[in-house]
Amino acid sequence: MKLASLKQGRDGRLVVVSKDLAWYADATHIAPTLQAALDAWPETRPQLEKLAEDLDHEAIPRERFHERDADSPLPRAYQWADGSAYVNHVELVRRARGAELPESFWTDPLMYQGGSDGFLAARDPIPLADESWGCDMEAEIVVVTTDVAQGVTPERALDHIALIGLTNDVSLRNLIPAELGKGFGFVQSKPASAMSPVFVTPDELGDAWTGGKLHHALKVDYNGKPFGRAEAGEEMTFDMGVLVAHLAKTRSLGAGTIIGSGTVSNRDPDNSPGRPVADGGKGYSCIAEQRMVETIAHGEPKTEFMKVGDSVRIWMDGDDGKPIFGTIEQDVVPLETSAMGGA
Amino acid sequence: MKLASLKQGRDGRLVVVSKDLAWYADATHIAPTLQAALDAWPETRPQLEKLAEDLDHEAIPRERFHERDADSPLPRAYQWADGSAYVNHVELVRRARGAELPESFWTDPLMYQGGSDGFLAARDPIPLADESWGCDMEAEIVVVTTDVAQGVTPERALDHIALIGLTNDVSLRNLIPAELGKGFGFVQSKPASAMSPVFVTPDELGDAWTGGKLHHALKVDYNGKPFGRAEAGEEMTFDMGVLVAHLAKTRSLGAGTIIGSGTVSNRDPDNSPGRPVADGGKGYSCIAEQRMVETIAHGEPKTEFMKVGDSVRIWMDGDDGKPIFGTIEQDVVPLETSAMGGA
Repeated sequence: MKLASLKQGRDGRLVVVSKDLAWYADATHIAPTLQAALDAWPETRPQLEKLAEDLDHEAIPRERFHERDADSPLPRAYQWADGSAYVNHVELVRRARGAELPESFWTDPLMYQGGSDGFLAARDPIPLADESWGCDMEAEIVVVTTDVAQGVTPERALDHIALIGLTNDVSLRNLIPAELGKGFGFVQSKPASAMSPVFVTPDELGDAWTGGKLHHALKVDYNGKPFGRAEAGEEMTFDMGVLVAHLAKTRSLGAGTIIGSGTVSNRDPDNSPGRPVADGGKGYSCIAEQRMVETIAHGEPKTEFMKVGDSVRIWMDGDDGKPIFGTIEQDVVPLETSAMGGA
Repeated sequence: MKLASLKQGRDGRLVVVSKDLAWYADATHIAPTLQAALDAWPETRPQLEKLAEDLDHEAIPRERFHERDADSPLPRAYQWADGSAYVNHVELVRRARGAELPESFWTDPLMYQGGSDGFLAARDPIPLADESWGCDMEAEIVVVTTDVAQGVTPERALDHIALIGLTNDVSLRNLIPAELGKGFGFVQSKPASAMSPVFVTPDELGDAWTGGKLHHALKVDYNGKPFGRAEAGEEMTFDMGVLVAHLAKTRSLGAGTIIGSGTVSNRDPDNSPGRPVADGGKGYSCIAEQRMVETIAHGEPKTEFMKVGDSVRIWMDGDDGKPIFGTIEQDVVPLETSAMGGA
């Protein structure tokens, strides 16, 4: 089943979307919003699944689905916590900062609590007030949980994953070192993330979803050119069950909690940092990694962080070669333009 | 105006509470929940104020208000970010860890993004799965904002403070050093915070609310004895406007964002760390400070962190000597008891 929230008010309007993302059916008679559906998931899930089945059988009234009309599936959420499951990314980014990777990072997940009071829709521009902040994309997998009891095991945590999607976890790289130095996590260096147009239930992914990992390539184009083709199911040190359990060690989690995988990242077969797509490699899911690899090769980074006018596309194709979650497609714009667009 | 949410479902039922906290009137015809009221604050605020006026004039049906029936005013929120405005606290806690205080901490606020998917009600027990985690209270002031545009100034930010209240920001002290070392902030060391039974509008505080500071003593009793009497308006390095502006530097804030002051903390007049209340001082708003002062005096801490059976009370008296926000009153219980109590 695929779910989306059409833009309407602060929380959107819940719809069920066809497998090919061409059609939708209104679902507000079951739950007005996705959060309301998740609040009563044992009751709403079977009703929504029946609706999705009817939609795919063309048995009910349907409307054309346009990804540009979709808000973030949860336009705001009660929790957003982002892990760093691909330790290759962490190692590269730290090397770029000249910092060593502690051995414990291979066994104890990094995770930060992020702002969840407002996500960007998949086609919303990225507002950037100051280019010197070093704006970067981070392409990631996210899961949305039902209620989770404190102390859940990683294995049992997988049963609490209701939905899966993609995010662009926008990061302001040049603000990160100072915030890391304070130890209190990211407040200013992580503005609003963008979410894929649709989130899907695990069964929708078939065999590609196993052991808390999603076995497809996460595709990133930057300014119209292939930039990242990393395999999300490979070199994921911590699966999604481990990340959910990490967050739930000392507290329960409310329904609608969104947990991110961290930037998807692969090494090259020879164990070196991945090569650019243009050089036959799998590329990168953020600019910071490419800059690190450039620094290793040339002594300094060549690729600049995102500036006004740059654009990023993030998506994941299924076995049929079509995007499973729709496409995140964002341009960087000055802050004022964005504010006017949203008024 | 004083607002509360009576326990009902996930988000409570909005009520207006009389100034003396003795009576309430249902406000669900104006907005079903406090979040809904904040989402449309320009429209709902005058209606709620009219209702509060009628309640205080006994002009409408009213019911007895019992603080034990109140949930957190926002039982869950889209954002909770906690500052450290009382740098004396930060300095003491760091000295307790043997860490220096960087000079920048006096000009650049510390702030972490906290979990907001579920707060404890003022009378809910604190569930503690493992006493070795070092459970501590942190008594703080909180403000709730309306929508805030990115880049707001500290002065203008004050106009976006809709409500003021108290919190017990429960902390697991022995999990903090490892999380600080990772730099990603607090995920496991900050379980659910408890909120005061009522939040109030700034005008309700009269002259005690000036310049983004609340000029009353924040009172803390621990196991029935006076523990903290720190003046919340004194030695607050960053006022609430500065904290709101800090969070809004790179992103807008959604209505219902809760921002905390950090642990309220005063030095002694001779500039030494404050003395215990029993010794004529203003005491402490958390156990960690008392342990630090003990370490200075005796070479090691004497007071243990909270264990099952310990209890804490947090409140603030107004000019009339009565609690403004009601009283946070919590016992520490084993995790299982708490889970059963909530079932």
